[in-house]
Amino acid sequence: MRILAKDIAEAAGSRPGEEVQVFGWVHRIRDMGGITFVMLRDRSGLLQLVFNEKPLDSSGAPLTLESVIGARGLPAVNEKAPGGAELQVKALEIISRAAPELPYQVNGDVSKMGLETILDNRILSVRSPKIRSIFNVQAVIIEAFSACLRSRDFTEIKTSKLVWGGTEGGTELFEVEYFDRKVCLAQSPQFYKEAMVAGGMERVFEVAPAYRAEKHDTPRHLNEYVSLDVEMAFIESEKDLIELEKDLLSHIFAEVNRKNRADLALWNASAPDPDTVAASPVIGYEEAVKLASEMAGKAGGGRIFDINPEAERFLCDWAKKEYSCDLVFVNEFPRRYRPFYTYPSDANRTMSFDSLFRGLEISTGGRRQHSYEAFIETLPRFGLKPENMQNYASLLQYGCPPHGGFAVGLERLTARILGLANVKEASLFPRDRKRVTP
Amino acid sequence: MRILAKDIAEAAGSRPGEEVQVFGWVHRIRDMGGITFVMLRDRSGLLQLVFNEKPLDSSGAPLTLESVIGARGLPAVNEKAPGGAELQVKALEIISRAAPELPYQVNGDVSKMGLETILDNRILSVRSPKIRSIFNVQAVIIEAFSACLRSRDFTEIKTSKLVWGGTEGGTELFEVEYFDRKVCLAQSPQFYKEAMVAGGMERVFEVAPAYRAEKHDTPRHLNEYVSLDVEMAFIESEKDLIELEKDLLSHIFAEVNRKNRADLALWNASAPDPDTVAASPVIGYEEAVKLASEMAGKAGGGRIFDINPEAERFLCDWAKKEYSCDLVFVNEFPRRYRPFYTYPSDANRTMSFDSLFRGLEISTGGRRQHSYEAFIETLPRFGLKPENMQNYASLLQYGCPPHGGFAVGLERLTARILGLANVKEASLFPRDRKRVTP
Repeated sequence: MRILAKDIAEAAGSRPGEEVQVFGWVHRIRDMGGITFVMLRDRSGLLQLVFNEKPLDSSGAPLTLESVIGARGLPAVNEKAPGGAELQVKALEIISRAAPELPYQVNGDVSKMGLETILDNRILSVRSPKIRSIFNVQAVIIEAFSACLRSRDFTEIKTSKLVWGGTEGGTELFEVEYFDRKVCLAQSPQFYKEAMVAGGMERVFEVAPAYRAEKHDTPRHLNEYVSLDVEMAFIESEKDLIELEKDLLSHIFAEVNRKNRADLALWNASAPDPDTVAASPVIGYEEAVKLASEMAGKAGGGRIFDINPEAERFLCDWAKKEYSCDLVFVNEFPRRYRPFYTYPSDANRTMSFDSLFRGLEISTGGRRQHSYEAFIETLPRFGLKPENMQNYASLLQYGCPPHGGFAVGLERLTARILGLANVKEASLFPRDRKRVTP
Repeated sequence: MRILAKDIAEAAGSRPGEEVQVFGWVHRIRDMGGITFVMLRDRSGLLQLVFNEKPLDSSGAPLTLESVIGARGLPAVNEKAPGGAELQVKALEIISRAAPELPYQVNGDVSKMGLETILDNRILSVRSPKIRSIFNVQAVIIEAFSACLRSRDFTEIKTSKLVWGGTEGGTELFEVEYFDRKVCLAQSPQFYKEAMVAGGMERVFEVAPAYRAEKHDTPRHLNEYVSLDVEMAFIESEKDLIELEKDLLSHIFAEVNRKNRADLALWNASAPDPDTVAASPVIGYEEAVKLASEMAGKAGGGRIFDINPEAERFLCDWAKKEYSCDLVFVNEFPRRYRPFYTYPSDANRTMSFDSLFRGLEISTGGRRQHSYEAFIETLPRFGLKPENMQNYASLLQYGCPPHGGFAVGLERLTARILGLANVKEASLFPRDRKRVTP
C-alpha cells in the first residue's frame, strides 16, 4: 500500500515495523560511503530514503537524479529528516530512468535560475518545490474565487473564445483562420457575460483564457492569460462592485493563507489579512493622479499624468503608509480612458475602477450602459457608428438591467501574492511575442 | 429590501403586511379588465404580480414583454400562483423598456422553436426557463467535477491554448496569426497535462476550451467545446481510469440530481443513480463490435465494423437491457485507432477506452507511454519521425511515471443528462462551420 511523503511520520508512529511503499522522483542523492541517503519527491513533498547498500538499477548502473522509483521499507523516526521520519529501504524499483544529463537542476536554488531557463524547461522546473508552490497557490485562487461567487448565487458560464471582432475594437487582436473566414481570439468575455446577465442569469462568472496581441514584452504582460470574470445585475454604481471585489479578494486571501501555508513559506510571503482588504481606500482618478505626481516629485521624479505603472506603485505605497493596506481602488476614471460601454457618472467621468495590489493593477471594472438610447447617443463620442455596433446593441434592446462587473488577472494576482518579479512566472506555459513553446 | 421570486411565499408567511421590493423581467402579461396579472421572472424563477390598475410606463405607454421592472408591494398567499404566493403591487418602476417587437418569444414553447432560432437569439432564448435550466445543470457539472477531483488530491491547472502543432498531428487544426508566425489552437491539453503529471504534480485536471477544425456538422460535434480533462500518475492500466471516471460521474450525477431538481423536471429528465454507474459494464473493443453488429443485423441493418455512432447506440441499448445501466465502457481499442502515445497492452491492442452514455461517446482515455525508449520505437508504426517528436519526447526523458487520463466533453455530458437532441443546445455560444455569432 502506497503512502505519501507527507505521511511518513504518521506511519512511523502508528505502524512501526510495518512495511510501506512509496513512489516518486529522485530529488537528491548523498552517498556517505556505506550508507546512501536519497531524497524522494512525490506530489506531497520530500521524504528521506536510507539505503544500506548502493542503490543501483537492474543493469548495475547508478541511480540518476529525477528518475521515477518505487521503494519499499520500514518507516523510522528521525528528527533530522524532513517531516521527522525516514524510510529504511528494503527493496528498490526503478520505474523510469532519467537521462543522466539534466538540462535544468531541479534541486538547485530557484532564485539563481534565469526566467528563460525556468520557462524553457517548464517540465523540469515545475518539479522544484518552490516553483510548484506557485501553481498550488493558483489552484486555490481559482477554487476560492469560484466557491465565493457560487455561494452568492452566481452561475458559472463558459463562452466562446472565437469572436467576430474585439469587444473594445482596436488592433490588439489575434486572427484565426476559421474555415473560409477570419475570426478573432476574444480579448475578454465582456459581451458574453453582459449578454448572460441581460439574459436573466443576473450574476455570472467565468474562468477562461483571454488574448491580447500586444507587442510589448514587460514583466506585467502576457499575450494569453486567465481572466477571472464577474458580472452582476441590479447595481447602483461601481461602489457595489468594489464591495464585491473586496469580499471576493478577502475570501481568496483567507483561503490561500489557510491552504497554502507551506507554499507561502517558500516565498516568505503571505496574503493580506481580510480586515485590511475591507479597509482598503477608494480614491478618485483625479485625486489619485495628483497624489502620485506629488509623491513622484518628492522622490525626485517627473510629473505623472495618468495611472501608469509608476503611479500604481506610488498609490500602493500611499495605501500602505496611510491605511496599512496592500490594496487600493481608483475609481471615477475619465470617459476618454474607458471603453464605449462604460456608464458615465457625469459629462467627463465614469462609474469605473481599477484595483491596485502591491504595486500592480490586478483588476478593471465598472458599471456598463444598460439603456439602448443612451448607448446609441454615446457612440459618436468614441468614433463608433451605430450601424457597426448592432451586435453589441442587441443586448440592450430587449430589457437590460443596470449592471456591471470586473475581471481579475489570475497570473497577476498569483504573482503579487507571492512577490514574483515577473507575471510570466505565474503562467505554466506563458506566451509572449517570442515564446510559443513548450 | 429586494427579495427573490423564490422567496415570495416565505415573505407572505413570515412578514405579512410588510412591503417588499422585487426586480426582474416581464415574462407574461394577462389583462383581465379591471385587474392585470404580470408574471415577473428573476434569476430564481417566476413570481405573479397583481396590478389593480393598468401597469403603464411613465409616458403612459403599456408595459412590454421582457422589460426590466421593479415592483414594490405586499406579498399575499395564493395557492394558484407559482410558489404559492403573489405580490399585490403598490408601485411600479420601469427600469429598461424592451422594444415591443421581440425577435424570439421568451415565454413560448421551447419544443416548438427551431435550433437555429434558439441559437441566433441566444440573449433572448436563454431567458426561457427551460433553456436557462440547461446551463444551470452545466454549472453544477463543472462544480462537481472540480470538487470531486480536488478531494482526491488533484491540482487544477490552466495551460496554453496556443500551440506549435496538434498533439495528434493531422489537419483538424485552426491556425492563428501569432505576430510574425503561425500557431494552432489546441485540440486538447494532452501534452500539457502529461507534462504536469511528469512534472511532479501526479494528479491534475483542467476545465478549458478545445478546438477541432472538423468540417462536418452533426448533432454530436462542436468546433469549440469545453473539455473536462483528467490525468494521473502511478496507474497500472486503463482500468484504474475507468474506476476513477465511474466515481467522478457518480459524484456529478448525484450533485445534479440534488441541486438541479427543478431544472431536470423541466426536461422530464434525471441523472443516473450512482449505483448503476458503479455497475456499468466494461467490454473489449472486438467483443463490442461483434455485439453491435449482431444487434444491427437483428434490427435489419448492415454489418458494423467499428464503434461508430450507430454502434454506440446499440451498445448503450445492450447495457440498459442487460445491466440496467445508462453507461458502458469499451476498452482494448486496436492500436491503429489510437494516437501514438497510447500504451499498448499487446501487439495489437491498447490500454485505452471510451465511455458511452445514453447512446453517445462522452469521454476517451487511456494509459500513455511513459518509457522514452518504447515511445521512440513506436513512432515509425504511426508514420512519425523521432526528430519531429522531440517536443513530445522531452516529457519522457527525465523520469516519467506510468500515467494516463481521460477527457469528458462538457456539452455532450450536459446534453445526454437532459436528453437534448443536439449538443449545440448545451453550448451558450456554439461554433460550427457556419456559425461564429452571436
